[in-house]
Amino acid sequence: MTATIALDDLVAALPDGAVITHPDIIAGYRQDRALDPDAGMPSAVVRARSTDDVVAAVRWCATNSVAIVPRGAGTGLSGGSSGVDGCIVISTEAMRDIHVDPVMRTATVQPGLLNAEVKAAVAEHGLWYPPDPSSFEICSIGGNAATNAGGLCCVKYGVTTDYVLGMEVVLADGRAVRLGGPRLKDSAGLSLVKLFVGSEGTLGVITELTLRLLPPQPAASTVVGSFSSVHDATEAVLAITNTIRPAMLEFMDSVAINAVEDHLRMGLDRGAGALLVAQSDSPGEAAAAEIAVIVDAFEANNASEVFSTDDPEEGEAFTVARRMAIPAVEKLGSLLLEDVGVPLPKLPHLVDGIAAIADARDVMISVIAHAGDGNTHPLIVFDPDDADQSARAHVAFGEVMDLAIGLGGTITGEHGVGRLKKPWLPNQVGEDVMDISRKVKAALDPHGLLNPGAVF
Amino acid sequence: MTATIALDDLVAALPDGAVITHPDIIAGYRQDRALDPDAGMPSAVVRARSTDDVVAAVRWCATNSVAIVPRGAGTGLSGGSSGVDGCIVISTEAMRDIHVDPVMRTATVQPGLLNAEVKAAVAEHGLWYPPDPSSFEICSIGGNAATNAGGLCCVKYGVTTDYVLGMEVVLADGRAVRLGGPRLKDSAGLSLVKLFVGSEGTLGVITELTLRLLPPQPAASTVVGSFSSVHDATEAVLAITNTIRPAMLEFMDSVAINAVEDHLRMGLDRGAGALLVAQSDSPGEAAAAEIAVIVDAFEANNASEVFSTDDPEEGEAFTVARRMAIPAVEKLGSLLLEDVGVPLPKLPHLVDGIAAIADARDVMISVIAHAGDGNTHPLIVFDPDDADQSARAHVAFGEVMDLAIGLGGTITGEHGVGRLKKPWLPNQVGEDVMDISRKVKAALDPHGLLNPGAVF
Repeated sequence: MTATIALDDLVAALPDGAVITHPDIIAGYRQDRALDPDAGMPSAVVRARSTDDVVAAVRWCATNSVAIVPRGAGTGLSGGSSGVDGCIVISTEAMRDIHVDPVMRTATVQPGLLNAEVKAAVAEHGLWYPPDPSSFEICSIGGNAATNAGGLCCVKYGVTTDYVLGMEVVLADGRAVRLGGPRLKDSAGLSLVKLFVGSEGTLGVITELTLRLLPPQPAASTVVGSFSSVHDATEAVLAITNTIRPAMLEFMDSVAINAVEDHLRMGLDRGAGALLVAQSDSPGEAAAAEIAVIVDAFEANNASEVFSTDDPEEGEAFTVARRMAIPAVEKLGSLLLEDVGVPLPKLPHLVDGIAAIADARDVMISVIAHAGDGNTHPLIVFDPDDADQSARAHVAFGEVMDLAIGLGGTITGEHGVGRLKKPWLPNQVGEDVMDISRKVKAALDPHGLLNPGAVF
Repeated sequence: MTATIALDDLVAALPDGAVITHPDIIAGYRQDRALDPDAGMPSAVVRARSTDDVVAAVRWCATNSVAIVPRGAGTGLSGGSSGVDGCIVISTEAMRDIHVDPVMRTATVQPGLLNAEVKAAVAEHGLWYPPDPSSFEICSIGGNAATNAGGLCCVKYGVTTDYVLGMEVVLADGRAVRLGGPRLKDSAGLSLVKLFVGSEGTLGVITELTLRLLPPQPAASTVVGSFSSVHDATEAVLAITNTIRPAMLEFMDSVAINAVEDHLRMGLDRGAGALLVAQSDSPGEAAAAEIAVIVDAFEANNASEVFSTDDPEEGEAFTVARRMAIPAVEKLGSLLLEDVGVPLPKLPHLVDGIAAIADARDVMISVIAHAGDGNTHPLIVFDPDDADQSARAHVAFGEVMDLAIGLGGTITGEHGVGRLKKPWLPNQVGEDVMDISRKVKAALDPHGLLNPGAVF
């Protein structure tokens, strides 16, 4: 009964319609794109329209010791926005303002705007926001900051944290605070902005971001190469990254090539063992020199077909193909989606090791990768109705992370730990780092209300 | 007596000669380059040669509740390495190993190596470590990480935090932990590496850094312009940064121009009100286009002389002139060295406001600046034997920070808060941010042993 009365207080503290309690709607907020089967059922969803709404919701949760699950667009791939039984989901999807300052070259953005919408809004001012997760058309900028999301151009242009100058965040006690701001350099006090980026909603709810923008990316030239073996392709990656900084360097294996070709019918080489798509966006002769390095690296590593173009639209078609890989492979079965990364020299070992795990567990693992920064997405495909295969897939999921850790790598390059990778985090970072992390978490959220299912 | 016995334990725990107790030598470790008159006298200096030495020293301090002041090369400009009475200074100046991995494009560096030595060591492998504080020939890489140091190329290439992938750090309880590592993307857990960068020795003692490296910087073209007024020069800065990303965009006022010319006699325009030095390092035709933008911006803002060169050595002479500015102005009297930054559009207001403060307080303030990122170094020159002038200089020192805060800026863009700027930090960031910062500090250093005089 107490809980019901208290929920009335929540409804009273927020604008009409902001608190959603209809079970069918709540059910849609229980999981993110990771579809964690263990996600709990929220007791309500708050669709915040302002920082004040978030403050009111967090205060109510703090007063009533109710768990808070922050949520952007719900496209997370590690289950970082999975429900906890009885929690309040605070959705920022309706917080969609943006203000671009072209002189300062910053955008002040509410968290619910999609990455693609941020890119479009700043492009109207002749500016560019680089980070480009493959899901950029459906993922929110707040979620990008919460997970320190990456993307395809990150190999040259860095990840989300490199573009977050400041934020407003609502703490576990309901205080809204501003961290950092529109200053290109700032050494005043602890780097709290950087601490909150990538903290997956465990330290606060992001209600505004100040983003650094760049002049528009120059038109890119693209090289596509087909390789008979994945090993040749990863050796070609190292030959390129040893010499230049490509603007993009993406990898797809044979399963991904064929799954994409099934959809797009763009003439990809179905017989290839791997495909690399590389770009240079350096200006003028410099692009030509970089393209030559890429072509040489492809040919020196036995590429069977090498196609290069300076037509941006033609190049974009291959980028689209790479972005399509996850949804295309998803048609083959249920997916366990990895995000493991390794120090670049270990990339061939990682790819070889994944193939060995797939063999040993008799499951299909398709590998796509932001190869140029060592960040791979092994996609473990399984039939959820085949209990034995599901079990083997889950074993392989853990083994791929163990493999990455053993190679000095990370269990997540850009998706975050969320729920699904939580058991492996201590193996990667060690107990001392877990201890420090828990102390920081406890200092800022002493009652453990913020996203209690995730990371820790 | 207890203290003396305990110091014997410290000596016993460390290699021969590592613990320095001679008063004359200790006195040299009392202050850094900020020469804080309120610095206390250490009871000993530990010249660590290894992580184990740092661990032993920190453990002894933790056991005996003795304050720890971490120290790199002692070139800090905010007093972040000022002694505390009875403290142990842990100097990392003798920890000087470096290992470069050219395939991974990283350097693993001990903290005592100088910035210039890091640059030189990685250049042998055809690689580049960008951050370049003006003091790069005398400042240590550990101190750079502790203050999140900037420099001249940061306007295009970012600051120290953008290049730190991982570190080993000794915590307040003496545990050595590894944060991050040689991975270009890593979203696993809280971003502790980024939290420790810029924490000015208040959270731990950095004993190793893993740095991201770039291919060599392309040869730069340089444009130098003389302006009759500082205001014209700052407007030219905005006209440039609105359009392109220069590789360098530095500002010197008339006092700095004349002080440098006194030393270098390179033919700078002694009658100019301000000088801008800008560079483009884009390849080929792109450099020519950027140089044209810079020349146009200079001429449109009434530059009286514009000189441009694509000879790197000729360009480097002007960079050296700009780097000489602080030591050259230092010859005119004692300095209070500011490091205030503002959002770029406010740069002209900041420079105008500083002139007004100099007038009102009847003190000389020479302004030099990393103008392209809004980070200025107003140098307040005073005669320490003139008590009244000293007092006015110190009032002006505070007023310049108040001015920057009022313009939405920062009290420190790249030097850190240290001792000297501590009273202004709450005014910039607010009490809530101070509260969070203190909680993080208390979580990691509950007894307040690490650099207790600084930041907080």
